[in-house]
Amino acid sequence: MTFSNLKRFLIGEPFPTSREIHERLDKVRALAVFASDPISSNAYATEAIMSVLIVLGSGALNMTLPIALAVAALVLMVIFSYIQTILHYPDGGGAYTVAKDNLGRFPALLAGGALLTDYILTVSVSSSAGVRAVTSAFPEIWPYRIWLALAAILLITWLNLRGVRESGTVFAFPTYAFVGGVWVVIAIGIVRYFGLFGVSPLVPLDVTVEAEESLVGFAFVWLILRAFAGGTTALTGIEAISNGVQAFKPPESRNAAKTMVAMGFMAMTLFVGISFLATYLNLMPVEEGESILSQLTRNIGGGGFLYIWVQTFTALILFLAANTGYQDFPRLSSFLARDGFLPRWMQNRGDRLVFSSGIVVLAVVSSLIVIAFRANEIAMLPLYALGVMLSFTLSQAGMTILMGKIGQLAPGETANTGVTEIHYEKKWRWKQALNAAGAVVTGIVFIILTATKFIEGAWIVALLIPLLVAMFYTINHHYDSVAASLSTRGLSDKDLVPIADVAIVPIADVHRGSIRALTYARRIAQDVRAVSIATHPDVRERLERRWNRFPKLTEGIRHDIIDYDFRDILEPLVDYIDRVNNREFPGQIVTVVVPEFIAESFWARLLHNQTANILRGRLRHQEHLIVIDVPYHIESPAEEEQPERKGTRWSLR
Amino acid sequence: MTFSNLKRFLIGEPFPTSREIHERLDKVRALAVFASDPISSNAYATEAIMSVLIVLGSGALNMTLPIALAVAALVLMVIFSYIQTILHYPDGGGAYTVAKDNLGRFPALLAGGALLTDYILTVSVSSSAGVRAVTSAFPEIWPYRIWLALAAILLITWLNLRGVRESGTVFAFPTYAFVGGVWVVIAIGIVRYFGLFGVSPLVPLDVTVEAEESLVGFAFVWLILRAFAGGTTALTGIEAISNGVQAFKPPESRNAAKTMVAMGFMAMTLFVGISFLATYLNLMPVEEGESILSQLTRNIGGGGFLYIWVQTFTALILFLAANTGYQDFPRLSSFLARDGFLPRWMQNRGDRLVFSSGIVVLAVVSSLIVIAFRANEIAMLPLYALGVMLSFTLSQAGMTILMGKIGQLAPGETANTGVTEIHYEKKWRWKQALNAAGAVVTGIVFIILTATKFIEGAWIVALLIPLLVAMFYTINHHYDSVAASLSTRGLSDKDLVPIADVAIVPIADVHRGSIRALTYARRIAQDVRAVSIATHPDVRERLERRWNRFPKLTEGIRHDIIDYDFRDILEPLVDYIDRVNNREFPGQIVTVVVPEFIAESFWARLLHNQTANILRGRLRHQEHLIVIDVPYHIESPAEEEQPERKGTRWSLR
Repeated sequence: MTFSNLKRFLIGEPFPTSREIHERLDKVRALAVFASDPISSNAYATEAIMSVLIVLGSGALNMTLPIALAVAALVLMVIFSYIQTILHYPDGGGAYTVAKDNLGRFPALLAGGALLTDYILTVSVSSSAGVRAVTSAFPEIWPYRIWLALAAILLITWLNLRGVRESGTVFAFPTYAFVGGVWVVIAIGIVRYFGLFGVSPLVPLDVTVEAEESLVGFAFVWLILRAFAGGTTALTGIEAISNGVQAFKPPESRNAAKTMVAMGFMAMTLFVGISFLATYLNLMPVEEGESILSQLTRNIGGGGFLYIWVQTFTALILFLAANTGYQDFPRLSSFLARDGFLPRWMQNRGDRLVFSSGIVVLAVVSSLIVIAFRANEIAMLPLYALGVMLSFTLSQAGMTILMGKIGQLAPGETANTGVTEIHYEKKWRWKQALNAAGAVVTGIVFIILTATKFIEGAWIVALLIPLLVAMFYTINHHYDSVAASLSTRGLSDKDLVPIADVAIVPIADVHRGSIRALTYARRIAQDVRAVSIATHPDVRERLERRWNRFPKLTEGIRHDIIDYDFRDILEPLVDYIDRVNNREFPGQIVTVVVPEFIAESFWARLLHNQTANILRGRLRHQEHLIVIDVPYHIESPAEEEQPERKGTRWSLR
Repeated sequence: MTFSNLKRFLIGEPFPTSREIHERLDKVRALAVFASDPISSNAYATEAIMSVLIVLGSGALNMTLPIALAVAALVLMVIFSYIQTILHYPDGGGAYTVAKDNLGRFPALLAGGALLTDYILTVSVSSSAGVRAVTSAFPEIWPYRIWLALAAILLITWLNLRGVRESGTVFAFPTYAFVGGVWVVIAIGIVRYFGLFGVSPLVPLDVTVEAEESLVGFAFVWLILRAFAGGTTALTGIEAISNGVQAFKPPESRNAAKTMVAMGFMAMTLFVGISFLATYLNLMPVEEGESILSQLTRNIGGGGFLYIWVQTFTALILFLAANTGYQDFPRLSSFLARDGFLPRWMQNRGDRLVFSSGIVVLAVVSSLIVIAFRANEIAMLPLYALGVMLSFTLSQAGMTILMGKIGQLAPGETANTGVTEIHYEKKWRWKQALNAAGAVVTGIVFIILTATKFIEGAWIVALLIPLLVAMFYTINHHYDSVAASLSTRGLSDKDLVPIADVAIVPIADVHRGSIRALTYARRIAQDVRAVSIATHPDVRERLERRWNRFPKLTEGIRHDIIDYDFRDILEPLVDYIDRVNNREFPGQIVTVVVPEFIAESFWARLLHNQTANILRGRLRHQEHLIVIDVPYHIESPAEEEQPERKGTRWSLR
């Protein structure tokens, strides 16, 4: 099976570019694809708040609901902001595009670097968290957790390489099954809370945990802030849709905005519902023990079918959260690549119209992180969510400025910011205020997160993001200088390097291979020079004898035989070529014609010197040298070895 | 540090070919280099006999000395035969050359395959045995034995790559120190045996071991044969000098023959001396326990300085025995390569005039065996010595026939066998008889070895040698067909494939790089066709616009733009080239000129598509296609990046 067949088998038939529109996502699939990360946060977000509060004792857990409501308010603010972004930037791009358009290049790159870091961590954290959920059910596979996490990454990578629509179909069911399952739990909980329909009412558990310490003043505020920061983990992935607007079926913006609203609704009902019931039931967070969501499900719905359903799809959606990274990392990379801040090839769509190289880069880097952290997502968490919060801040700051620009317009007037069209909007002041408030709050959360988690690992990200930004600038500088170097602006005849009418043909012997090379050299140049290295007097004698056997062929070709008392014949060859290139024809392009055997198989190739290949490598750095390999096929390849090709796919206009 | 500097640092300055004669070995170094294997056999050969006899009980150990004397007689016979070989084949080659000259190609290849197998095993067994000697002194490093064995192989490889003279100097001292040390032990033993000079006489130990079984008839003979076969391990490596005659200073044959005699004297005095004293002292072989040589040294010389000396140099010479493999494997490979039975590059001498590629191949293969057998030389032993014995048989059979040829000559007459000059010798009948006897005895030993060790592992070698021979034939067939394919015999004008006056230039854009390629193409062909792939209508439009910007440059060049609705632009390019090659110019050579960027660094290269390289790979199999890369250096490389070269070493006559 050839590589191309294998690829076709794994990835599927290539899609024509014109099919891109058919590969777009409808709202149902889009929600599953983009929202798996924010929705999956509900598996642990409430617990993240409670596990901070518990140090003040079980009494302090009453504060869970107020803090959760504050987080929910923040989420609504951010969702509102991103809906604005989607509507104003229908080509997608999220924080990077908004910052680029309104704040300038550096903030844009900062947002880009922050988001890329976070998407990579999303994949590492989610796959590790998913594996933890599985291994807590089957402890005997715990030693293989790194392999399991890598296998999960491989699987998600494969599905994503097959195309966004196909992966959307696969991912839809678990996402809705999770949301549906938890909704049922919450609904039963509320019914039992109010004692409706004569069901048994909910009874809070009788558990008390002593306070580990009593905090007053600033320490108390700091703790509340940390609990709040813990809850903001519910925000990660919210921005995903804004980067992926172009993945939606038209009308892209409207569909994306509607999906955003649906996602916000789902995420917030789950978050507030879980927080409310957990507080009412007096559930206690247990480190390394049963999760709050599991306790909640068991207490409300019993240990039966519903419990198994919720547990199963919790594990699955934790894995699937990785998919949010797979949606956005390649897309954001393609934006950055298009603008020349990442390798250009990251903007190319692959056979199935996804940004394959971005997907592969993401898979490799996140796998390395999984290996480095030994699939322990607890250790990765301090690195996580920082990048998202920074990008929120920058994005909302950008939207604030955009709203200001909109406010400058007269009613009915439109303008172009360079990236997008804007026109006057009545409620711009309100929107601006909301965005500004969002920017300030997420900015504060960013500072809190960085400060509270700095020593535990946030410093890595604080170091990594600037390094990424520096890399973006370096890459951009390289492309700029390439463009300048290739530019035809001001190109004149004298800029063209003249081509010397000379061809050097290194030959080891006179045979059909070297004769073909000599014939070709004569065809392209008047002044042909065969050059041979004699490591022994016998070699010189034999070369001269054979050369003279073909007077017609070799007529007019100079044959230079160099005596050399070492065995590394490349040395004098390269010296000879240098001499012709630099002394005889300085500043001109000199041609070297190398006879090359092409053996039929890999094994046969091992039987021959690789002199031609090594020579080509040695000459590669010479600016004014063109090396031509003249192939001689030692045995003509069997017909079946020719790569099979289907009918041509193109038309010559 | 560049690769070439690193190589120079590790291996040393290259030697000129003319210095080869200075790199030859004097007799003192030669003995150390070639004889380390046969001399080191004395560390275990006596024990190999005794450990078979012991199953009949300690009384049967009396048979050790007679068997050892029989082995010694065989050794003398073989040494005599090889001295004849050395004198008659002064160019070296041993069993392979003798068999080729007298028995034909198949026996010669059989001898070659057998010896190569054995040399590889020599290295694996010796390095593992050396490590065992070290780890029995320091048991805590036992877990690292594989690494230690590999490190030993690496060290010996390195020394051998630095040149035969240099390694000879390093290896000389341990060899002579071992021989001297054991000689002193034997001398003291004999002095004490005869009670000379009033020293305390030797007292046999009072140990008895019960017979495990009592054998009669054939079973008894079989056991004696096995004990004899065990003793023949003393023969391995004896032939080494005959392969390496050309490593000696002139007069090569005489020096080699003298060294052979000296080696035979050393090996036999050690072997017989140890066997005699061990039997007299009533020493018992203990499996996995103290070796006979160690017991002997301790009993005769006490546990002091002499004991430590002998033990130290025993360990060292066991390592050094590997060097015999390093001397002969590369040399024998070079003979086989010269005759076209192994890759030709194995006959090339490296920078230091040794057969570097043979050394590296040996190091790699023997390392793999060490890893496969987990550095357990006991498990490798059944594979060992078979090959040597087969080559002895073939070599002596060949010498018998050579002596017959010599007997045909009239006194004073000379003749040429094809490989060597022979002339009448008076005592040819005696020599022939001795060689024939040697062939018969070593043939029988070969059969005994194969039969007694077949199940324990000899079958691997019995399988491997025919496979090697088959490989030799395959390689030879390949070279024959290459030679036929390249041969200029009967070459006529119509055999030369015509070169079509066409150049295809794939271009992605119109810039300085593609303009240079187009200019070059125009220089070498009248009919130049630029071809571009448009994956989007915008691309076509831009290409056309830019193309028309340079009317003077593009005048007369056809520009084919292909619309293509997939992203893999190589497909339509290869199709286009195929079409031109196979339909428009069938049977002619078509030229493709590819513009190629050369980026200054590896990292910069990552930023660019590798389209040119991949295209070259795809087109490589086409018989009638020449691909020319026209390089465009994106930033001219800094001056210091140019590989520094010393003054030229060659002269142009």
